[in-house]
Amino acid sequence: MRNILIIGCGLLGSSLLRRIHKKKIANKIFIYEKSSSNKSKIRKLKLPGIIIKDLDQAIKNSDLIILCAPMSEYKNLILKMNKSLSNKNIITDIGSSKLESSKVIKNFLKKGIVWTQGHPIAGSEVSGPENGKQDIFENKWCVLIKEKNTKKKHLNLLSNFWKKMGSKIVVMTAEKHDKIFSMTSHLPHLIAYNLVKSAQDFERIQNYDLIKYSAGGLRDFSRIAASNEIMWRDIFFNNKKNISKVIDLFIKNLNLFKKDINSKNNRSIIKKLTQTKKVRSKIIKLKQDIAKPDFGRN
Amino acid sequence: MRNILIIGCGLLGSSLLRRIHKKKIANKIFIYEKSSSNKSKIRKLKLPGIIIKDLDQAIKNSDLIILCAPMSEYKNLILKMNKSLSNKNIITDIGSSKLESSKVIKNFLKKGIVWTQGHPIAGSEVSGPENGKQDIFENKWCVLIKEKNTKKKHLNLLSNFWKKMGSKIVVMTAEKHDKIFSMTSHLPHLIAYNLVKSAQDFERIQNYDLIKYSAGGLRDFSRIAASNEIMWRDIFFNNKKNISKVIDLFIKNLNLFKKDINSKNNRSIIKKLTQTKKVRSKIIKLKQDIAKPDFGRN
Repeated sequence: MRNILIIGCGLLGSSLLRRIHKKKIANKIFIYEKSSSNKSKIRKLKLPGIIIKDLDQAIKNSDLIILCAPMSEYKNLILKMNKSLSNKNIITDIGSSKLESSKVIKNFLKKGIVWTQGHPIAGSEVSGPENGKQDIFENKWCVLIKEKNTKKKHLNLLSNFWKKMGSKIVVMTAEKHDKIFSMTSHLPHLIAYNLVKSAQDFERIQNYDLIKYSAGGLRDFSRIAASNEIMWRDIFFNNKKNISKVIDLFIKNLNLFKKDINSKNNRSIIKKLTQTKKVRSKIIKLKQDIAKPDFGRN
Repeated sequence: MRNILIIGCGLLGSSLLRRIHKKKIANKIFIYEKSSSNKSKIRKLKLPGIIIKDLDQAIKNSDLIILCAPMSEYKNLILKMNKSLSNKNIITDIGSSKLESSKVIKNFLKKGIVWTQGHPIAGSEVSGPENGKQDIFENKWCVLIKEKNTKKKHLNLLSNFWKKMGSKIVVMTAEKHDKIFSMTSHLPHLIAYNLVKSAQDFERIQNYDLIKYSAGGLRDFSRIAASNEIMWRDIFFNNKKNISKVIDLFIKNLNLFKKDINSKNNRSIIKKLTQTKKVRSKIIKLKQDIAKPDFGRN
């Protein structure tokens, strides 16, 4: 890879920046960042790369372009980029939902240009370039999206790129991606936000000071309920059909759970509470979480 | 304190054992444990204390008796203990719900004996004496329950005891306790169990292998969904009225959330996602969780 352009340099953009620099993968790294606050942070932190103003020039000089901006910015950015894009550019992104963005790309990207979508399963409740880490993608999955017009060459190139970032690669369609992550990521975040919101409501209704007793379980949920609001709004809106379906499944199960509790259905409850336990062991075995109790935090 | 009797020596019982021994609070520590597997673990680990068979003798020789057994065992244990209990014993427990156990205590405990309920807000997804830690109560709340017949002397004594365990003390009624913890602990656990169950259902329906993509959020929930099934069945059954009410509040909010997503109600969603964020900062400020992103696990 000669030159790489990172568009949007927040948590993940700056993590890529750090990793690309560390692994000496690029000749030059260009950074296009809208937020002046982020730009000054990048300068203060003395992060590698060149902050550019002239997007057209940077596109023309880049082999690989990685969009790390919020998904709600894709349309505007594509319209800005179109003029300078050519077949020489490999274009990808890191957005957390795929089908809706693939439509935006189809509708607005200049004809003849191919965009290969990606989604590294990495993140944190904190955001901004000050929180990026070069090893954030280490041993994490990176999903690459294969569509009708996907070029095998691009897929191979991106696959190699993400391996250098530390990721394990899996290729799937946008449809399958959005279904899987509606359950493993989008619903958990929505549930966490909703639980914290319900605790706030309850605190107000009961006039209790209850957040201070959050160590019994609530604190776990508060972590992902502290995630970036723009990113999560975009995900919830973009993947609303799949998310609605898993919300319905979740509510159906929750009502059954409530019924079992109220009728003291011992057999059904014990079955539920033992079967879910197996998932934790599986997750640890698959190295998707650390084995230490309590996330090793105490 | 002269002698202390711990009834039930799992995660928390063995944590008390370790701490009492470390702080040299007792002359003798007696352990009454039903499970032969736990007893052999305690022996292998060379934990302090004397494993006893004769409960009556141990009760007569103990100043403080701490019930650390599952709440569903309370009735049987009380009936066993009654014969030897006297006014000289200070009796407490560590159960996670309080109103239902207070009824069991009222109904079955020998007249004239006072039992002061307690609940240290500490635990883990792992159980058993091999996972106990002497510092598990450090800086955690311990709730002591005050009822009409509570003796001030007992409350003071238990308050001092739990301070030596590392806890911060708060006194409240069983009713208030059960309401607060239905929201901060019981609902989060039930939601976590229900989310993991829904993910399992979804995996089966869709025929996807999705647990391996759990790092996007699901893995956080899998931790508390791996908690001890007997303990949590007892909590869900004992506090079912309060839990049902918070389930209803949660479902009401979840349906509103779904509606906002489907109608792309930007203002309402952004309000939700920013207000819940504040709770995380509050929890960290109150030292109910560590400040490091991602629980410091990566």
